[in-house]
Amino acid sequence: MSGRVKRGLYVGRFQPLHLGHLKVIKSIMKNVNELIIVIGSAQKSHEIGNPFTAGERIMMLKQAFQEAKIPVSKCFFIPVPDLRMHSLWVAHVISYSPHFNVVYSNDPLTRRLFDEAGIKVEHIPFFDRELYSSTEVRRRMLVDEDWRTLLPKSVSNIIDEIGGVERIKDLSMTDSPTKRNH
Amino acid sequence: MSGRVKRGLYVGRFQPLHLGHLKVIKSIMKNVNELIIVIGSAQKSHEIGNPFTAGERIMMLKQAFQEAKIPVSKCFFIPVPDLRMHSLWVAHVISYSPHFNVVYSNDPLTRRLFDEAGIKVEHIPFFDRELYSSTEVRRRMLVDEDWRTLLPKSVSNIIDEIGGVERIKDLSMTDSPTKRNH
Amino acid sequence: MSGRVKRGLYVGRFQPLHLGHLKVIKSIMKNVNELIIVIGSAQKSHEIGNPFTAGERIMMLKQAFQEAKIPVSKCFFIPVPDLRMHSLWVAHVISYSPHFNVVYSNDPLTRRLFDEAGIKVEHIPFFDRELYSSTEVRRRMLVDEDWRTLLPKSVSNIIDEIGGVERIKDLSMTDSPTKRNH
Amino acid sequence: MSGRVKRGLYVGRFQPLHLGHLKVIKSIMKNVNELIIVIGSAQKSHEIGNPFTAGERIMMLKQAFQEAKIPVSKCFFIPVPDLRMHSLWVAHVISYSPHFNVVYSNDPLTRRLFDEAGIKVEHIPFFDRELYSSTEVRRRMLVDEDWRTLLPKSVSNIIDEIGGVERIKDLSMTDSPTKRNH
Amino acid sequence: MSGRVKRGLYVGRFQPLHLGHLKVIKSIMKNVNELIIVIGSAQKSHEIGNPFTAGERIMMLKQAFQEAKIPVSKCFFIPVPDLRMHSLWVAHVISYSPHFNVVYSNDPLTRRLFDEAGIKVEHIPFFDRELYSSTEVRRRMLVDEDWRTLLPKSVSNIIDEIGGVERIKDLSMTDSPTKRNH
Amino acid sequence: MSGRVKRGLYVGRFQPLHLGHLKVIKSIMKNVNELIIVIGSAQKSHEIGNPFTAGERIMMLKQAFQEAKIPVSKCFFIPVPDLRMHSLWVAHVISYSPHFNVVYSNDPLTRRLFDEAGIKVEHIPFFDRELYSSTEVRRRMLVDEDWRTLLPKSVSNIIDEIGGVERIKDLSMTDSPTKRNH
Repeated sequence: MSGRVKRGLYVGRFQPLHLGHLKVIKSIMKNVNELIIVIGSAQKSHEIGNPFTAGERIMMLKQAFQEAKIPVSKCFFIPVPDLRMHSLWVAHVISYSPHFNVVYSNDPLTRRLFDEAGIKVEHIPFFDRELYSSTEVRRRMLVDEDWRTLLPKSVSNIIDEIGGVERIKDLSMTDSPTKRNH
Repeated sequence: MSGRVKRGLYVGRFQPLHLGHLKVIKSIMKNVNELIIVIGSAQKSHEIGNPFTAGERIMMLKQAFQEAKIPVSKCFFIPVPDLRMHSLWVAHVISYSPHFNVVYSNDPLTRRLFDEAGIKVEHIPFFDRELYSSTEVRRRMLVDEDWRTLLPKSVSNIIDEIGGVERIKDLSMTDSPTKRNH
Repeated sequence: MSGRVKRGLYVGRFQPLHLGHLKVIKSIMKNVNELIIVIGSAQKSHEIGNPFTAGERIMMLKQAFQEAKIPVSKCFFIPVPDLRMHSLWVAHVISYSPHFNVVYSNDPLTRRLFDEAGIKVEHIPFFDRELYSSTEVRRRMLVDEDWRTLLPKSVSNIIDEIGGVERIKDLSMTDSPTKRNH
Repeated sequence: MSGRVKRGLYVGRFQPLHLGHLKVIKSIMKNVNELIIVIGSAQKSHEIGNPFTAGERIMMLKQAFQEAKIPVSKCFFIPVPDLRMHSLWVAHVISYSPHFNVVYSNDPLTRRLFDEAGIKVEHIPFFDRELYSSTEVRRRMLVDEDWRTLLPKSVSNIIDEIGGVERIKDLSMTDSPTKRNH
Repeated sequence: MSGRVKRGLYVGRFQPLHLGHLKVIKSIMKNVNELIIVIGSAQKSHEIGNPFTAGERIMMLKQAFQEAKIPVSKCFFIPVPDLRMHSLWVAHVISYSPHFNVVYSNDPLTRRLFDEAGIKVEHIPFFDRELYSSTEVRRRMLVDEDWRTLLPKSVSNIIDEIGGVERIKDLSMTDSPTKRNH
Repeated sequence: MSGRVKRGLYVGRFQPLHLGHLKVIKSIMKNVNELIIVIGSAQKSHEIGNPFTAGERIMMLKQAFQEAKIPVSKCFFIPVPDLRMHSLWVAHVISYSPHFNVVYSNDPLTRRLFDEAGIKVEHIPFFDRELYSSTEVRRRMLVDEDWRTLLPKSVSNIIDEIGGVERIKDLSMTDSPTKRNH
């Protein structure tokens, strides 16, 4: 489609969205006209490593972008469910996304899969990856350490509204068949 | 989530998006603050009744909204793949969507499924449904009648760019195993 | 398992259970100690040919058996979802069922699949199959003819309680994406 | 359905059914008219943590109830396969089950999922959970400790008939692709 | 892989393999060093339009090739199950196949899908397509017309050995849930 | 089918094919006329334990057999994707395979599953299993130890051509959502 628009693609699970994600996204948006944000593992929620639904994660993205003055009209938020075959993953992302020119990723597998498909891949700058990590946010929630400073204010609010911390604590304690669903 | 926002939900397949869809959406947006647009059967494409990918349909929505001055920042475009069980469809849509207060639909089954789940459902006004129908658009494409007047200009352009008419004609002629994939 | 018990297996979709089913089941139960009743296409509901959920169909079976004095304690009601491969269907039924000695069926494909797997298959007597048919029951519901005389009283009651006739009428009128879920 | 009947729901995997399950079920049945017993992860078998098929587990439940004088006619044994999405699990259970009024569970996730869906959830009394655990039963089987005292006699008999201990030992030793099926 | 080998790909369902298939394959093999034969809809069998299993179809191919003196050592017979998304089909075939340089197909959709993926597609000559058609073979089997003259002798023999005609007749008469598995 | 042919079946994942596999296969082929080689977990690739696609594995088998003078015309290479239910696995393999008389396996679960289905199972001789193991090959690739001496020359060549070592190293470093696809 319209050759003059440079459209990038960025993949995350956003469990939850944190300030590191926002810094990366702002950095990428200096180099593209529009950005497609793929919300990976869209079908997952209520798991200890994937507590939030796709709908909740879309809400986090939209409100955090507005809080951070990132123009939502230049972004696409696209939930993409997992496939059972890695070899099909790039074709799957392509079918769910508007046309894009370049993928931003530091992950070796993501880079390899898109590269093998002939799609341009660029590195993204790191922003204190130890600190700004969804795993660290969830860990802090479980042990009642300060997790709010790692997140945009709007995301903290959404997590409060949906009882996200209680949900994660429940998920950590479950022993039921539902836990083993996957 | 924030109780003051009235958020509606509208489901379509948009194969392709036409002017009737836009009229319905404009009409609904007078009554809600934000609108979630669910792109149904997201996993389907390259079928005679579902020629366009989810990514292409998202592009149609975004560009047609900008052309029609519908504020994209108040909308969510959410591709949702089919499930194999109707009884789970409402829960599926809920998990992919931000919280919503009301569903707009005239379809008896959609109305029933949301109503049984305790979700408010409202009717939408009709706009010459015989004429403004994706089935009619695809029929005209196949027989080289005028289909452009049924679509926003931006959607016609996208279809031209991706060779949509040729794709539909190919799909109508196939006799291959891929046609029978489902 | 215990070789002295003769256990039969009978497959139906029961959309809905009617008096013909009950006659067949009574007839089979003269020849076996226990009967496994497989509720096929368990995952389907809210489709024009499959309006009722597995749970609703289990309820119909239980209450109709009690009404007809068929001993529930000698029966197993087992919902079995469809598979995508016919060649696996017999193994699938076996894994969901207690051990059985004989299958009762007149259907050529069912008979063939079990026979190829080395399982004994016996015929069942016909009971006015034109009249006692779930298809006929659903047709009468749609056009407001008398459907109650084809069903046990308890099943009619369940259908009334869940608004079954309205559901079928809604299903017949839908034009929504949910209709095309499969 | 019939408002006068109080119907409860209890979820387990029963790999295998043990005396602790029976105590819980007897305790619940003092408070309800009928009890739905959901056999979770119904599609699984021949895995080290899920050795028995749904059919074998249904058989265990039926025979143990008869041994323990629990009235089978007041119970429903319903095998329910896993879903790939936790957010759909409650809707899935509802579609497979007759209408129920209350869920009995101590598991935080199960409680949360039903509670979020607006369904009443009650606690169940504990009965020496360390001892009466399917994991403990399977461990004892593997190391030839006494597992029989943890099970109803009828369940021990079924396990003997189907060679259950040998199956578990084989499953613990496998290194084949089939082990990695999931 | 080894650039000097020209490897072609040809897709069919082979329900059953007939003389027209063999003529096409012989014709293609004049232009390539090796040929990959994809057996499509591999998961299907015991359906009226897909009566034979993947294993039976592989057997037909092997024996017919030996009968026709087509060198099996230059061919790959690869059963590929259907996917639920057309947009992934080419990536799916690629992952199941050794590297290939060119696809042989007259089907507009197959040609389009591979062409969009940047893979070379060539036409194949027609050989009396009305006569040499699997649909025609199955029709003749059902009505006891001469079907053997349309097939290689070895394929007729396999069909006799597995009782293929009786299977197709049974499939045409079934009214059971198994028929509606899809 | 033709009762005079003794046809064996052997299951592996071949991630990658190594010299131990070849020794086993040569040993088996002394006892059968034809051998079916099932390539298990066919849908998997680009995972740390399953790096190669089904197509790449088929290529390894074909070229290694030619290098080792094993007659390809007496073998079937059949990729079989995983199922979600172990209880269906034997039926699944049967549907993908030509008729076979005997399974060769030392794995307790594989042996049990085929044995329960009434299929003859025979042991295979061990060939230094610690050394000749795909896990060991992949470990050596990751740490740059000598992996080539464990493989046929033709397989080493294929791995070089497709950049297999780099792929495995990338897979070991990934932290992306795609890694967690399963």
